[in-house]
Amino acid sequence: MSGAIDLAIRGGTLVTAADRFRADIGVRDGRIVEISERIDGATEEIDATGLFVLPGGIDAHVHLAQPTSDGTVMADDFETGTRSAAAGGNTTVLPFAMQVKGTSLRDCVTAYHEKAAGNCYTDVSFHLIISDPTPQVLGQELPALVRDGYTSFKVFMTYDDLMLNDAQLLEVFDVARREQALVMVHAEGHDAIRHMARRLEEQGRTAPYYHAEAHAEIAEREATHRAISHAQLTDVPVVIVHVSGRDPMEQIQWARRRGMQVYAETCPQYIALTRDDLKGLNMDFEGAKYVCSPPPRDADGQAAIWEGLRDGTFDLFSSDHCPFYFEAPAETGKDNHRARTSFRWVPNGIPGVETRLPILFSEGVSKGRISMERFVALTSTNPARLYGLYPQKGALAIGADADITLWDAGLTRPITQAGLNHGSDYTPYEGMEITGWPVRTLLRGRTTALDGRTVEGPRPGRYQSRGLSEAVTRAG
Amino acid sequence: MSGAIDLAIRGGTLVTAADRFRADIGVRDGRIVEISERIDGATEEIDATGLFVLPGGIDAHVHLAQPTSDGTVMADDFETGTRSAAAGGNTTVLPFAMQVKGTSLRDCVTAYHEKAAGNCYTDVSFHLIISDPTPQVLGQELPALVRDGYTSFKVFMTYDDLMLNDAQLLEVFDVARREQALVMVHAEGHDAIRHMARRLEEQGRTAPYYHAEAHAEIAEREATHRAISHAQLTDVPVVIVHVSGRDPMEQIQWARRRGMQVYAETCPQYIALTRDDLKGLNMDFEGAKYVCSPPPRDADGQAAIWEGLRDGTFDLFSSDHCPFYFEAPAETGKDNHRARTSFRWVPNGIPGVETRLPILFSEGVSKGRISMERFVALTSTNPARLYGLYPQKGALAIGADADITLWDAGLTRPITQAGLNHGSDYTPYEGMEITGWPVRTLLRGRTTALDGRTVEGPRPGRYQSRGLSEAVTRAG
Amino acid sequence: MSGAIDLAIRGGTLVTAADRFRADIGVRDGRIVEISERIDGATEEIDATGLFVLPGGIDAHVHLAQPTSDGTVMADDFETGTRSAAAGGNTTVLPFAMQVKGTSLRDCVTAYHEKAAGNCYTDVSFHLIISDPTPQVLGQELPALVRDGYTSFKVFMTYDDLMLNDAQLLEVFDVARREQALVMVHAEGHDAIRHMARRLEEQGRTAPYYHAEAHAEIAEREATHRAISHAQLTDVPVVIVHVSGRDPMEQIQWARRRGMQVYAETCPQYIALTRDDLKGLNMDFEGAKYVCSPPPRDADGQAAIWEGLRDGTFDLFSSDHCPFYFEAPAETGKDNHRARTSFRWVPNGIPGVETRLPILFSEGVSKGRISMERFVALTSTNPARLYGLYPQKGALAIGADADITLWDAGLTRPITQAGLNHGSDYTPYEGMEITGWPVRTLLRGRTTALDGRTVEGPRPGRYQSRGLSEAVTRAG
Amino acid sequence: MSGAIDLAIRGGTLVTAADRFRADIGVRDGRIVEISERIDGATEEIDATGLFVLPGGIDAHVHLAQPTSDGTVMADDFETGTRSAAAGGNTTVLPFAMQVKGTSLRDCVTAYHEKAAGNCYTDVSFHLIISDPTPQVLGQELPALVRDGYTSFKVFMTYDDLMLNDAQLLEVFDVARREQALVMVHAEGHDAIRHMARRLEEQGRTAPYYHAEAHAEIAEREATHRAISHAQLTDVPVVIVHVSGRDPMEQIQWARRRGMQVYAETCPQYIALTRDDLKGLNMDFEGAKYVCSPPPRDADGQAAIWEGLRDGTFDLFSSDHCPFYFEAPAETGKDNHRARTSFRWVPNGIPGVETRLPILFSEGVSKGRISMERFVALTSTNPARLYGLYPQKGALAIGADADITLWDAGLTRPITQAGLNHGSDYTPYEGMEITGWPVRTLLRGRTTALDGRTVEGPRPGRYQSRGLSEAVTRAG
Repeated sequence: MSGAIDLAIRGGTLVTAADRFRADIGVRDGRIVEISERIDGATEEIDATGLFVLPGGIDAHVHLAQPTSDGTVMADDFETGTRSAAAGGNTTVLPFAMQVKGTSLRDCVTAYHEKAAGNCYTDVSFHLIISDPTPQVLGQELPALVRDGYTSFKVFMTYDDLMLNDAQLLEVFDVARREQALVMVHAEGHDAIRHMARRLEEQGRTAPYYHAEAHAEIAEREATHRAISHAQLTDVPVVIVHVSGRDPMEQIQWARRRGMQVYAETCPQYIALTRDDLKGLNMDFEGAKYVCSPPPRDADGQAAIWEGLRDGTFDLFSSDHCPFYFEAPAETGKDNHRARTSFRWVPNGIPGVETRLPILFSEGVSKGRISMERFVALTSTNPARLYGLYPQKGALAIGADADITLWDAGLTRPITQAGLNHGSDYTPYEGMEITGWPVRTLLRGRTTALDGRTVEGPRPGRYQSRGLSEAVTRAG
Repeated sequence: MSGAIDLAIRGGTLVTAADRFRADIGVRDGRIVEISERIDGATEEIDATGLFVLPGGIDAHVHLAQPTSDGTVMADDFETGTRSAAAGGNTTVLPFAMQVKGTSLRDCVTAYHEKAAGNCYTDVSFHLIISDPTPQVLGQELPALVRDGYTSFKVFMTYDDLMLNDAQLLEVFDVARREQALVMVHAEGHDAIRHMARRLEEQGRTAPYYHAEAHAEIAEREATHRAISHAQLTDVPVVIVHVSGRDPMEQIQWARRRGMQVYAETCPQYIALTRDDLKGLNMDFEGAKYVCSPPPRDADGQAAIWEGLRDGTFDLFSSDHCPFYFEAPAETGKDNHRARTSFRWVPNGIPGVETRLPILFSEGVSKGRISMERFVALTSTNPARLYGLYPQKGALAIGADADITLWDAGLTRPITQAGLNHGSDYTPYEGMEITGWPVRTLLRGRTTALDGRTVEGPRPGRYQSRGLSEAVTRAG
Repeated sequence: MSGAIDLAIRGGTLVTAADRFRADIGVRDGRIVEISERIDGATEEIDATGLFVLPGGIDAHVHLAQPTSDGTVMADDFETGTRSAAAGGNTTVLPFAMQVKGTSLRDCVTAYHEKAAGNCYTDVSFHLIISDPTPQVLGQELPALVRDGYTSFKVFMTYDDLMLNDAQLLEVFDVARREQALVMVHAEGHDAIRHMARRLEEQGRTAPYYHAEAHAEIAEREATHRAISHAQLTDVPVVIVHVSGRDPMEQIQWARRRGMQVYAETCPQYIALTRDDLKGLNMDFEGAKYVCSPPPRDADGQAAIWEGLRDGTFDLFSSDHCPFYFEAPAETGKDNHRARTSFRWVPNGIPGVETRLPILFSEGVSKGRISMERFVALTSTNPARLYGLYPQKGALAIGADADITLWDAGLTRPITQAGLNHGSDYTPYEGMEITGWPVRTLLRGRTTALDGRTVEGPRPGRYQSRGLSEAVTRAG
Repeated sequence: MSGAIDLAIRGGTLVTAADRFRADIGVRDGRIVEISERIDGATEEIDATGLFVLPGGIDAHVHLAQPTSDGTVMADDFETGTRSAAAGGNTTVLPFAMQVKGTSLRDCVTAYHEKAAGNCYTDVSFHLIISDPTPQVLGQELPALVRDGYTSFKVFMTYDDLMLNDAQLLEVFDVARREQALVMVHAEGHDAIRHMARRLEEQGRTAPYYHAEAHAEIAEREATHRAISHAQLTDVPVVIVHVSGRDPMEQIQWARRRGMQVYAETCPQYIALTRDDLKGLNMDFEGAKYVCSPPPRDADGQAAIWEGLRDGTFDLFSSDHCPFYFEAPAETGKDNHRARTSFRWVPNGIPGVETRLPILFSEGVSKGRISMERFVALTSTNPARLYGLYPQKGALAIGADADITLWDAGLTRPITQAGLNHGSDYTPYEGMEITGWPVRTLLRGRTTALDGRTVEGPRPGRYQSRGLSEAVTRAG
């Protein structure tokens, strides 16, 4: 190699989405410039002997600092959220820039930039959430935003303040096809959920557990089929996010066998939790700690998700980090008591950006369910490719950003709230034994986290404008 | 990088099964020791500007110098066969060491070593063909051979001189499970084929075309299901080789959805030929040039195979190179006239080791059906992993053998017999226009072929003892 | 037999949904009282030698005298509609009593009774159409109407003036479960159709043919899946009416394999027409003669429907008779010209109550696709069982109404507008050659039609209050 | 009705495969000549008030007086076997005329006629078992026998003394197509079973229970797929007999969805027993009482069979009556001890001709799983149609034989060995509570059994020559 090496990571075993081999990595100016049998003479050296060297985690599904319709304050802003992410082995996160109905999408994006600027421990980029597809948004703002590097957007088929009806979905899909953007869909049938919820409330079934009954897997499957049909009709690729179980998964497999371009994401809650967790202790409010949408399903659903993670049904494994407080903090001036009157008032979402990688590694790789290469594909390379960050991100490749996570596959310790860095006052995975933890995270060659804690100082995270998704640009 | 570099391949774009990026590669002592932005000062340099740099092709299904039951001489020995392979971009081939009934398997293996020694332009290793599973073979020879690095064997469900009955298949599968070997299955139903053949002959239908009718896809599907069932019963992974069309492919997909560990291979003849090619000119003997088993199917079958290549149904893309002469050479003292009385006497097999990579690249990558990464996976990384050669082979990775193919994705010229190096006197792909050709092949850093012709001199190919298949050792 | 026989039908071959045998039938007081080898001495005799004796046709899907949102006058009232039905071999028809939005359902029912009273050549009963499921309708009117014998109702997932949204569908399904009524669903995705229609109109594609493009099979499949999911969620059996092709049919088969209680109906237009018929002559307005919803599909769709008719996927074969004028009659004061500006203004529906039985018999039974027993099941016994008319209707059984159709299986003549009795000024089946025609229809023992023309005199049709559907009362 | 009535069955409720209604039945000369509201003045009357009047049971799968390869004596000859059948509500049974290898098929048939003549309480007809398809058998005997009314034959894919290899199966299928006979297949993979059995014996697992492990469902599924493929290749309809569980059933459904003409039979042991029954008391020899092939499966398998009985997957419900003694009778001079050394020496077969109808009625009709009409179809009408006995048998129709079973749907009592009439010294259903028993069986108008016991006197059963199967003659 000609030229000086700023940093050499030495003695580790590199793992990409395809390969695994022992090598040293050389970094200059924040980029990987050399992968060699031996790199001597670097300005700085990190000893990675006995560790795995992975492309930094990319969490493509994260909610930070979003306003909610009832005023509940999210437990993470960009600072705490990306701190948590970095400590958990991530180098890039993709939060959402959510359009509030009645407002300009562009203005919303600007506001998120302001929230993020200077506060991030990871690189960030924004998916757009379109909640109000006015002609102005569809005809002017969206095309301009895609050209500016916001190349993916998410739509909701449920939630009163976010959902689009079928006519709106089809219009957004049409814009996505024209502008070559990638659409992510939260697929749950709104009316079905409301119908079930009302019935349950009429029966006095208001404990958090009934959230899992109201958000029936049938409703998720139906909406998945509907979203796929709309995508087929408008001839546009689509990502079904946070797939929870066997039924919606089968719809995706069915669509693919018929040649449709459907991508799929799943999350830790669907392999590490079940609906029974929502029962808490004897159906009490503890169950609220596990309320997310779609909810975790049952053991057979978990088995299905593992099959999908192995066989390529799933392209992405994201956290759907959406953190709230279990006990409302005093400074919010809220008591959250309203939440306790019915599952319907429990905010939907759980924290997970920090535990995503350890959970998949421990339950997947350490237990022999998936290979380490597939782990890298699901958590880093595929999100980079699908969301227009590749090859700058998602690869241990010459020229790529030196976003690297060092992994100790043999380290065993439990997940505990005390050990985490997120803003929430609990973790749904409290006490879960994990074998395989990230021990160092490097963002563009700079260490952002060490042994589960971030390195303090100026926050190095930058905003990343994105290219087009490979879903729209590449074959196979 | 510390230490001198023997050879630098500079300016190309590296492609692995997962990644693609511009870099220089440094080779020392036949192994890849550096991948860098820029490697100066190597003893030798190759300019790869504008070219793709791929792991050398591994053809995992090749027949060379095999005796046949009727004395027909195969058109390739190890010298011509591996010459053809190297010219076509391959660095390793896996021919079969075929047991002749009534003989010791070990002795057969020894004989193949003698045929290969000193004659190869590529590295070679042997799959075993078990045609006579005596207690001695099953109890003594096979376990010893697996331990000696012959970690895969093939069994036939058809051909009078090779086929095993179901009882024998099950016994071989049992041995494979116990010894951790990988079984490859030629899945066609023998009795069904013979039944169809007899019926066709009774009707005077003896032209080569009727080979494709006798070897019905139903018979292939049935045998595929049977092989899968035997594997399920004995709890052993299995590779279904040379899958020809939609029906057998669906059996494989069905088995996988049920959690069975079934691997699948397809070949160029199933994407580039159809049964109509066997018609020759007005049903004449020209059709014999396309006789192979299973035979090519129809356009819908081709479409199915492409789906399978895209969606991961197929792990392997091999040639099933099995070369014969169309006109018998004088020195054999044979006139091949017997062949002309009925399709039943036409040897089953076509040449293809040299055209495998160009056909898949041109029809697949250049036409946008599969990505270049998937091309690498199918033709190099996966065969290395499945057949115990990884990570020494199949990867552009530090420490791996410098088995490298330089690829000119923009070069367009047709396949012609004159341009090929194999021993056959024809190619079934005569005149087929190809975009994307290998222009240089390097075996352990040494150039073996340049622009479609091998570099003469001592033949550098070595025998490779193999480790266990990842099918038996790894997860996911 | 004890007691006098009013009428004996002698010498014919009786066919039921299960059996076929030669026998005489004896009728007294309008009911079948004897089936014997030989019945002598009846007051009246009909010679059925050489004919098949079938239970009278029951057409369970007929629109008569319905108001339309744009004021277009339907071409049949109860008199002409039931005349046409009787001439076509039917003894019972089930038109719809359609709720107009903003009005009482009970009042609508009363109005239909007034339209029907004294005017019918067949017995009639009403399905309800619920277009405005107010609390009053759901909580009071519907339960009372079910108890009064209106035990089935239909809901629409499209049409601006009729459609229910998902929330309303779920509420209606809940009422159906509680009251043990059977729900029929018109399953087409409204927003998808509108989206496609708008796109086509923007492209200037306004010919009648584009109706078939706008009403895409994908939209029908999606709505079928959605309706089935709602039924699964609310645990209620459901009938998917007028299934047009392979895609929606597969959803129904999929649901049944999973144990859901889903019934299916198809119609003559899906076996005797294709979308190409909508092209008319060179894309002219002739195509409007074939506009119905869902539209006919293609040859593969027809093949799928035949499979479904054979294998039991379809329980019902109805006409979906919905007759309009091609040329507006002078007395309506309308010129229908508006229709011609775009396919969107062509009323959706075609006549068919008179041709339903001949088309299925000729294309199905005479061509060997289905058995005569299955013909009887699809056109008479199953509708009687599913809609609460059995065993009074739908059977050649002791005690059943003597509703009988004599069938000449060997009679061949074409369908012509001149030969029909409906109110429309055309038939979409003009010139279609039919082998097998009804030659005599008897309602409760009284001949209502002879050789394709009704017998004039006081109209004998009566209203039939219905029992519960076997879908809610029986096993298997 | 003109002419005197010999016998009137009065006041019952008739059930056919399609209809159910109250009527009297009049019989003359052993045939049904009248079905009326009221039949007075018959020479003899039977009061059927409160009873169901069904077409007599037809058991299409019965083994009587067959020799076995090890000399074990079957527990039923024609006298005891048909006595048991009649007491259990049957009027026709179809035993097998089994070819012993090396002998003439015609001679075997003659021998069975001699065994049956004068000894039967039911009508009988023979399926042929082909165990030695010599050219003489295929070319001469079979065609002549089909013309003589032996229109169905059975082939075995397992059992050393009976099995045909694939080549032989294909030849028999070809003959069946040419001669329009219907082939029944015992589908279990012989080599797979032997392989499993040997493995189990090597492990010392010899208790009767291991019969169920050796006869793995995988082996049945594989053979089912193979039989279906052979039938597809030779274009001939086929009946898969005694289907035991979900896996083989899915193969049949798959084949039908692809348009293949495959019929399916199941038996009482697959809904009323499970593999756990073979465990006996603590894995003792009691388990031998439940040894049959295929063996009963598990609860999920039972659920699958019920789905298939409901949804039309199964056409036939037969007993596969194959009776042996649990304790060898003294007069045989055998002690059966050999049987006890390993499950491999236990004769495969259990008694069931007498309990078939009560078990299906009680578990199916009384428990609401299937309708009574479907019960009639599965046990009488369908076997008559598929095996060329219709319309003389299998229907309550004018002109049909007066083969009638009176059924008391409300009678509840257990199955006990003491209450049965078969030759075996046990019943596998001992103690099973049954609701719904046959109380009177009439063969051609003559009572053969009353309240579970046959009426003694000259045995009225006759041999029935059969017509062609509807599988080869009819549509749909």
